[in-house]
Amino acid sequence: MTSSSAPTSEVPTAVVISIGEELLEGRVADTNAGTFARELLLHGLHVSALYTIGDGVGELQQLLATLTDKVDVILTTGGLGPTLDDRTRGDVAAALGVDIVPVPVPGAMAHLAEVYARYHPDQATEEFLAQASMPAGAEPLANAVGSAWGFMRNLGSRSRLYCLPGPPVECWSTFRAGGAAADLQQRFGAGAGLAHGVLHTAGAPESVVEEQVREFFSPGSNPRLGITASADQVSISVLARSEPAKASSASVLLESTLVELQRRLGHLWWGRDSQTLASLVVETLSARRQTVTVAESCTGGRLAAALTGVAGASDVFSFGWVTYSNEAKQQQLGVPQQLLVEHGAVSVEVAAAMAEGARRVSGADWSLAITGVAGPDGGTAEKPVGAVCLAICGPNTAYTLVRQQFARAGRDAIQRQSVRDALDMLRRALAGLPALG
Amino acid sequence: MTSSSAPTSEVPTAVVISIGEELLEGRVADTNAGTFARELLLHGLHVSALYTIGDGVGELQQLLATLTDKVDVILTTGGLGPTLDDRTRGDVAAALGVDIVPVPVPGAMAHLAEVYARYHPDQATEEFLAQASMPAGAEPLANAVGSAWGFMRNLGSRSRLYCLPGPPVECWSTFRAGGAAADLQQRFGAGAGLAHGVLHTAGAPESVVEEQVREFFSPGSNPRLGITASADQVSISVLARSEPAKASSASVLLESTLVELQRRLGHLWWGRDSQTLASLVVETLSARRQTVTVAESCTGGRLAAALTGVAGASDVFSFGWVTYSNEAKQQQLGVPQQLLVEHGAVSVEVAAAMAEGARRVSGADWSLAITGVAGPDGGTAEKPVGAVCLAICGPNTAYTLVRQQFARAGRDAIQRQSVRDALDMLRRALAGLPALG
Repeated sequence: MTSSSAPTSEVPTAVVISIGEELLEGRVADTNAGTFARELLLHGLHVSALYTIGDGVGELQQLLATLTDKVDVILTTGGLGPTLDDRTRGDVAAALGVDIVPVPVPGAMAHLAEVYARYHPDQATEEFLAQASMPAGAEPLANAVGSAWGFMRNLGSRSRLYCLPGPPVECWSTFRAGGAAADLQQRFGAGAGLAHGVLHTAGAPESVVEEQVREFFSPGSNPRLGITASADQVSISVLARSEPAKASSASVLLESTLVELQRRLGHLWWGRDSQTLASLVVETLSARRQTVTVAESCTGGRLAAALTGVAGASDVFSFGWVTYSNEAKQQQLGVPQQLLVEHGAVSVEVAAAMAEGARRVSGADWSLAITGVAGPDGGTAEKPVGAVCLAICGPNTAYTLVRQQFARAGRDAIQRQSVRDALDMLRRALAGLPALG
Repeated sequence: MTSSSAPTSEVPTAVVISIGEELLEGRVADTNAGTFARELLLHGLHVSALYTIGDGVGELQQLLATLTDKVDVILTTGGLGPTLDDRTRGDVAAALGVDIVPVPVPGAMAHLAEVYARYHPDQATEEFLAQASMPAGAEPLANAVGSAWGFMRNLGSRSRLYCLPGPPVECWSTFRAGGAAADLQQRFGAGAGLAHGVLHTAGAPESVVEEQVREFFSPGSNPRLGITASADQVSISVLARSEPAKASSASVLLESTLVELQRRLGHLWWGRDSQTLASLVVETLSARRQTVTVAESCTGGRLAAALTGVAGASDVFSFGWVTYSNEAKQQQLGVPQQLLVEHGAVSVEVAAAMAEGARRVSGADWSLAITGVAGPDGGTAEKPVGAVCLAICGPNTAYTLVRQQFARAGRDAIQRQSVRDALDMLRRALAGLPALG
């Protein structure tokens, strides 16, 4: 990770606390912390730490004591459910020295009792009904997709506390529709002091991307840049802060930096923020009323899954093949047996024949094909694990590409890298850009 | 999340610290923390908290000061790379009040200089070479897949500190092959005081699974149980601790509990620990020398991807179809147009015809088909978002299943739930179990 230094202290600060033994045991991946880290950043807050703690008696209370009035925002997820181990309400009330009171929304408790009665013959337990209570002085945050209410409250003279349920869908709904986001907006503005954006690239390794934009990375500079590489893309994150002395706003600085980065990155750059390569090509195809088909060997369905993971993919995608064996490649896509014998299944010749066959049979405008060695077995000296051949066919377009994916990253990463490279071939072809070497 | 209470204090404790601004900005998902939380648990340590902090000057030093001699193990990931922001060595040295010295391994520094020379014309920078240094008094941990050395050292009289690089492959290699795991083993034994296992189930919601095993969940009980539900499975985690007073070992208690849970859960239970439904069916098919094919509509390739994500899948999987449109279902799988007109694409009739067609064309022993409404659009009153029809065909087997997946969880979860249900159909069929209703 390359980056310049942290924002200065005029920016309001936040911490995110995830609560649950299942997180400490590594049984459940915590997606809430990352989601709210990004979200708080977009509200103009600098997230200074993420904490994960268990549900033991007093654990949260103890942590809150060390954080009160040290940060501007404390956001907790988890510990609001219907069991004895759900101690967030109790720990917050203890930290504040206040009672726990019913949520002041007419019918809230009766509604919970009714929900309980739908699934159980007996009366609702005290713990279940506690989901419609909160520490005195708090404001309730409605949960449209679950039974536990969230709440928000001042903690000390500076800190604002938001307590949300743990399940990601409930957490997000309680934050967004429930009212926490609006409260943040009102207190901290639209993040005017801080603006954040991410540029995504494909087609070059991290070191080459960094080379193009190196001078933006000087320590202490504003905006602050960071590069991260994954099997899906190399991304540059830009965090700009307003400089009242120069009368420059964070968002203006962000946009001008992004424009300059895009200029330097040229065709390597393909998207921003939440965009994905798959969503980009689906949108582009959809706007042109064109379609795509895929023929996959070593990626085993992941390219099709990436495309059909985009809502609305049915407008542009109709047929896909997972031809894992030679027999399947011949029978389904008409790959000549001779090609398979002469060049082997992992060859640009076979990749091209797969793409042609898929396009012909489906009648799609574009086709992509992938054949390679995903490992961990099956590698040879000539075609080691990570060797992948890709092909694209389309209107006046037909070419192939050979990639040696980073094999030590493992099967899953080799498959993801290959899906990325295939989608980027289509992205470039749709934009009329030259093929990568 | 339902669970009983935390382990008692005789068990040694650990914390994991993840370092990096990219984590605080939510740009990169932290997989290390969960991996090491699980790993430390298996070494018999109770993980009491996970921390994520930035790379500002002194941030780590400050946190270490609050943790020294409060816990037995402190494991950090990140901050060991070649940039100015990589401050782990410096912060640890400052916390200890010691110098930074070269790693005492002959040739370590020369090797790094050589690596640098391969990619750069100029001399290696001081920051780059710092990757082969560490705080005085530490022991080096070799990194076989990257340039930064890890290290381990005592901190205070009680705490043992392990500092590992951030990239997951390097982190794991440095921990395992580099020597940290062996050091943990020597200090804390093979986790004799604590034993952990997870049972996976499918075919019933969390509440039904909990109902079967409720009495194991009494507060303070040993072993400690937890239930977690995801779109892929409902799992029960069991954490047993040894009770010297009763002369019962943790592993014996764990195994006897798992056996009893399995008995109560009956056919809902399908696997343990790192097993997945896909790995289970691939292994079972492979052992029987049987094959499977898939025909997918709303899951768009994810079922094929789940199967081919298992190393060795090529022994049992050869053909797969993503027939997203009606035309593809007719042309590729021979689904009669009349069925599509009469019953609609999302119907058990069409699912059955897809499965039959896929099995016939591929010649596979088994076939699975999925057709449904993944959303967010395309739902109707009769077939709302989340309505999914599944079919299986095999030797003397052919049946269908209708599922209403939890629609509010979104497109991604609906697809995953449908893949889970299809794999579970095959799991049950292979085990000769009756079809679910």
